[in-house]
Amino acid sequence: MGRTAGIILIGNELLSGKVVDANAAYLCRELRALGVDVRRIVVIPDEVDQIAAEVAQFSGRFDVVFTSGGVGPTHDDVTIEGVARAFGVPVVRDARMVEVIQRFSGGNLNAARLRMAEIPEGALPMMGDGLVFPAVVMKNVYVLPGVPELFRQKFEGLKEQFRDEPFHLVSVFLSVGEGTLAEHLNEVVRGYPELMLGSYPELANPEYKVKVTLESKDRTYMERALGDFLARLPASVVVRIQQ
Amino acid sequence: MGRTAGIILIGNELLSGKVVDANAAYLCRELRALGVDVRRIVVIPDEVDQIAAEVAQFSGRFDVVFTSGGVGPTHDDVTIEGVARAFGVPVVRDARMVEVIQRFSGGNLNAARLRMAEIPEGALPMMGDGLVFPAVVMKNVYVLPGVPELFRQKFEGLKEQFRDEPFHLVSVFLSVGEGTLAEHLNEVVRGYPELMLGSYPELANPEYKVKVTLESKDRTYMERALGDFLARLPASVVVRIQQ
Repeated sequence: MGRTAGIILIGNELLSGKVVDANAAYLCRELRALGVDVRRIVVIPDEVDQIAAEVAQFSGRFDVVFTSGGVGPTHDDVTIEGVARAFGVPVVRDARMVEVIQRFSGGNLNAARLRMAEIPEGALPMMGDGLVFPAVVMKNVYVLPGVPELFRQKFEGLKEQFRDEPFHLVSVFLSVGEGTLAEHLNEVVRGYPELMLGSYPELANPEYKVKVTLESKDRTYMERALGDFLARLPASVVVRIQQ
Repeated sequence: MGRTAGIILIGNELLSGKVVDANAAYLCRELRALGVDVRRIVVIPDEVDQIAAEVAQFSGRFDVVFTSGGVGPTHDDVTIEGVARAFGVPVVRDARMVEVIQRFSGGNLNAARLRMAEIPEGALPMMGDGLVFPAVVMKNVYVLPGVPELFRQKFEGLKEQFRDEPFHLVSVFLSVGEGTLAEHLNEVVRGYPELMLGSYPELANPEYKVKVTLESKDRTYMERALGDFLARLPASVVVRIQQ
């Protein structure tokens, strides 16, 4: 089945509607393209206990976990403390981090800036391709910043280590609605129980009514299911097929 | 503290990056404007057991719960079954729903269309302002469709029943970074422990470096905290204040 992932978004601003998250959708797309199966996303407030509980649960349940947000120098940046608590370790000041921050701030190290050098005991400041500031990695948990530019920069630097067998996907665009299609889809699912089969209606699209996606890590299996599905439909309802 | 809410987004297409969710951000903004505090969002696959577990947990934990997605007529639409299982009741065909669907489909009722008439036993098909198709409501759980146009239409029809005391919010835009601000923010939090205080850096904005938000259901409390915060800053760093 390949590797699984979970994403934890941390930030009151997401829950109160002040900020629209861009990181989860980006990460889902990127991980899918790498062959990694995202199984769960959760959005929680800047509260240490909730962060600790989610990180502990996700870390045990998925191969790799990403957190987004809560890693700056201010009062509401409590992700590092939450991750440490999830693993039952203290937060410590890391000499490697202090050195990087010193370079960044031109030696002007106040208490707030030094907070950025704190990591869970046993975590690794991980440098990747093109990274100027390390990402903090605690076991299988990658602690990433919430600011989208920085989030992407860090993920780009780390992503090759997550590459897995790819998913194979084909999309079939149809001119009939789900009410007509449902029985055919059920038959395909019965014949190909391992297939990932999606059905997405479009209300206002003049080109098609439903997009059906067939997906598998096994290309031959996906292609056989596609043949089976198409054989059930009158050719006139297939608008186009995109592989 | 006012009412709390939780949001459950259901759909493999969100986790696999095929579709970018628009409903959670919309609902967070709307609920905030109504005075409701969204405490948690989760994104899960189209799997009955996971839906049941989340709905049961959210329903006990929050005043009101919204689900998005998984309510069409196809094989992957299993939200109704998940909600029923969360409350330990069977799924039943509802006569009121059959009647509506009959009107919609011009009497052309196949098995797939009739699936849309199934609801958890004890749930209510709820009509709201301007709604043509009812929303299914099971205790404090509102089952909404994933298609954004329909999601918004249904929420618009229902939303007045959720109105609560409003939040009062002021945003202060500053020309200094978080490293400089952090100590002042800590002092404000110490003096006003009930204040919701947010700090959001902007990397590429020429106008300001950090937006600080002060928020409370108690306007006087918020205004006193604002006065305290501004008194700590040199006036020259305040770019503007937005209330």
